[in-house]
Amino acid sequence: MNARDIEKLREIVGEENARSSPADLYIYGADASVHAARPDLVLVPGKTEEVQAILRYANAKKIPVIPRGAGSGMSGHAVPIDGGIVLDMKRMNRILEIRPQDILCRVQPGVVDDDLNKALKPYGFMYPPAPASSCIATIGGEIANNASGTRSVKYGATRDSVLGMKVVLASGELVKLGANTNVEASGYQLERLMVGSEGTLGVIVEATMKIVPIPKIRCLGIACYNKLADAGHAVSEIIASGCSASMIELMDNVAITAVNETQNLGLPDVEAIILFEAEGRVKDAVQAEIDAIQAACEKHGGFNIETSYDAKERTRIFAGRKKLFSSLSRYKEGYACTSLADDMAVPYSRMADLAGKIHEVAARNNIIMSAYGHCGSGCMHTKILMDVTKKAQWEDARRAVAEIYDYVHSVGGTTSAEHGIGLSKAPAFKKEKADSLELQRAVKRAFDPNNILNPHKLFDAPDDWVTATELRYPVGSVREP
Amino acid sequence: MNARDIEKLREIVGEENARSSPADLYIYGADASVHAARPDLVLVPGKTEEVQAILRYANAKKIPVIPRGAGSGMSGHAVPIDGGIVLDMKRMNRILEIRPQDILCRVQPGVVDDDLNKALKPYGFMYPPAPASSCIATIGGEIANNASGTRSVKYGATRDSVLGMKVVLASGELVKLGANTNVEASGYQLERLMVGSEGTLGVIVEATMKIVPIPKIRCLGIACYNKLADAGHAVSEIIASGCSASMIELMDNVAITAVNETQNLGLPDVEAIILFEAEGRVKDAVQAEIDAIQAACEKHGGFNIETSYDAKERTRIFAGRKKLFSSLSRYKEGYACTSLADDMAVPYSRMADLAGKIHEVAARNNIIMSAYGHCGSGCMHTKILMDVTKKAQWEDARRAVAEIYDYVHSVGGTTSAEHGIGLSKAPAFKKEKADSLELQRAVKRAFDPNNILNPHKLFDAPDDWVTATELRYPVGSVREP
Repeated sequence: MNARDIEKLREIVGEENARSSPADLYIYGADASVHAARPDLVLVPGKTEEVQAILRYANAKKIPVIPRGAGSGMSGHAVPIDGGIVLDMKRMNRILEIRPQDILCRVQPGVVDDDLNKALKPYGFMYPPAPASSCIATIGGEIANNASGTRSVKYGATRDSVLGMKVVLASGELVKLGANTNVEASGYQLERLMVGSEGTLGVIVEATMKIVPIPKIRCLGIACYNKLADAGHAVSEIIASGCSASMIELMDNVAITAVNETQNLGLPDVEAIILFEAEGRVKDAVQAEIDAIQAACEKHGGFNIETSYDAKERTRIFAGRKKLFSSLSRYKEGYACTSLADDMAVPYSRMADLAGKIHEVAARNNIIMSAYGHCGSGCMHTKILMDVTKKAQWEDARRAVAEIYDYVHSVGGTTSAEHGIGLSKAPAFKKEKADSLELQRAVKRAFDPNNILNPHKLFDAPDDWVTATELRYPVGSVREP
Repeated sequence: MNARDIEKLREIVGEENARSSPADLYIYGADASVHAARPDLVLVPGKTEEVQAILRYANAKKIPVIPRGAGSGMSGHAVPIDGGIVLDMKRMNRILEIRPQDILCRVQPGVVDDDLNKALKPYGFMYPPAPASSCIATIGGEIANNASGTRSVKYGATRDSVLGMKVVLASGELVKLGANTNVEASGYQLERLMVGSEGTLGVIVEATMKIVPIPKIRCLGIACYNKLADAGHAVSEIIASGCSASMIELMDNVAITAVNETQNLGLPDVEAIILFEAEGRVKDAVQAEIDAIQAACEKHGGFNIETSYDAKERTRIFAGRKKLFSSLSRYKEGYACTSLADDMAVPYSRMADLAGKIHEVAARNNIIMSAYGHCGSGCMHTKILMDVTKKAQWEDARRAVAEIYDYVHSVGGTTSAEHGIGLSKAPAFKKEKADSLELQRAVKRAFDPNNILNPHKLFDAPDDWVTATELRYPVGSVREP
């Protein structure tokens, strides 16, 4: 990418929307993952025509283009491993239409999740996937990642909310996918293929998403466990007994301690807690679900169960979960909280096993791991807490990550539940999906023959995540010289 | 396809599972659509390895392969327009696993929907999409079609139920897609791309599907309307007011008359009725939903509203809808009921308009059309009743179909809600998806470079559905000589 390319591309978006200072290139070289690289140029397009012009130019010159939302991705999706253009989509942040009568909305990709929900609230509706990063995450990024969250046990993931979209292809061509309807059986569901494609198939410039009515009544509960495995079994029991929960979250003792020590929230100091919620139109119905969930919790040793319909009280009970990520970051002096092996999914009946496995693997590999997450939707979260300045700790992490994923794959689970693959999870992903990698590459070529869109991610990412890029920590490089 | 090919292919499945008598070729040349063609050979494989061997052979010799479930498709998906092999998947009909603890089941593609539900019942679970053809439709066919049905307003379509699958590609290679987990964000969702691909991307040999608990309590209701438009507005109101209905079905007067005259069911002789259902764990909750639905129905002129929790009574009320398709076939002496423009989807707020449009178009084009369907999920059904022996009637139908689809597309609707595109709907589909047709073809080439899998369907189907094949009626040919 030469000076002339940069000048031509700057012209497309205007001087004020093109960035190439060292500070900008540093910031746009990283996301919330452990990885860091350096783009040649950052462009912040304001409209579809600009995105088309950028892609036409980049495609002709075979310049990499990395679409980026909030940069809150945890696996390196937005890290420009080959340099090129980072395409910051946050300026395209208009809510184009809210249509409660059709239970859908139409938005640009840069709309922040919480902003969309704020706009929907006066209509009595919400956009349900609710990832923990909803205060910064953009809808475009959530689609590219197939995000899910606390409410996915009831409402599904982003893939279940997408009705249609407009996409700029690598060629610069604009295509409309899907429809403004609740069901559709008109051929290939390319709009659903875009979900989870991590910027490798096209640039989403508009999305039509299903919305749902805000429930009138909500009840939140908390149950304590002396054994982590029991809490895991309880999650499985709640699901299998047909309770209609709108949230089931697990927190292990590492998570509880982190929250208590850094936020002083006074969560019960037990081996695990489950947070659960039910919602609905009438209180008796909600209470019936809560009773059933409570019975399932108690069947597996849950105690000190508290529930509340009160909004303030619910916020208080949930605060620990809400602040968990930032709490883990401050859990141990000198230890950073890294998003590694951070969001696997397993069949419900394996939740308890997986939670135990995580602790066992952590102990054996000199790192700290927490088991928590949206267990109601089948997603277990972990983080690896370690001294990121020590090279040996990265070797520990590499071993731990591999062991965790070997377990996950052995029980029919999958590498990522909701954060996507990017760079960090690519080795495990390639192992899991070994027999369809060539097919995935063929699909990629069909969309992007010149391989300009977020190249070297997913199936084409390096085989060792530790050395895939520079690390975003003062460890220097773990790469071979 | 020569005699040697036939012999080689027969050897793969064994003599008893290969069919080529004129009667067999006649039967396997048609499905439930208006189309008919003639395959060269019918093969009924019993296991995955046989499917692989057949595809390897066919791919090398560039012989078309048309996967077929029950043959209940209404748009010509399984009609072998280029001859070749019809691959009848009904022998691969084993339920491999039912795992209530993981709320999933694993099945072969030939399992009939009702049989799966019978097997799930003792566990207290069901497989929810529930197309009207569930007594014959196979799971493989439902996936290939992205089927939905009466329960899709609550549980979504087949695309929302698929977790994973095993697919034999055109090359004969076997790939595993998806996972045994409730959420997954591990790259491209190729398992969801397979949904609705109508046999053009691969042969599904196994599927992992989400199951849901059978609700403890159900209440069914019926509301009468003097104006069809009012019933349409009521459907939209029920959805937008956030009622949690498990079914909302519309029947217009043509449908009501057909059912009353042929089945003697005594449905109220009004312009339209709405059938609605709510379900749940406790009666008060169900009643609260029923009250809210009833209020929405009444707001738009609904009267004589009856509801019942009693299973027998519910069956009686629903019998009219259940027997509608067969009733329409006997509605008028000398008229056949054809599946044309039979399952469009529109945004909810356009339901009333669409119902009116259907009647207006029918009147202007000398045919009879009924407006009914799973309006709760956004799907409107029609049929065209006409004298299929008269060439002029096919011209009438061609005009009517085009007019209906022009309206559907103009309001952001889509050509098919749940029956798929096949041959009959391809012209409208190509118009609707004009800007992504090349992309769809590129995806098809990525999966099937030799174009052997169900060729000349969807984006590659003929531009005039009336002359695309011989018609399955004694009209002779409408094709130009």
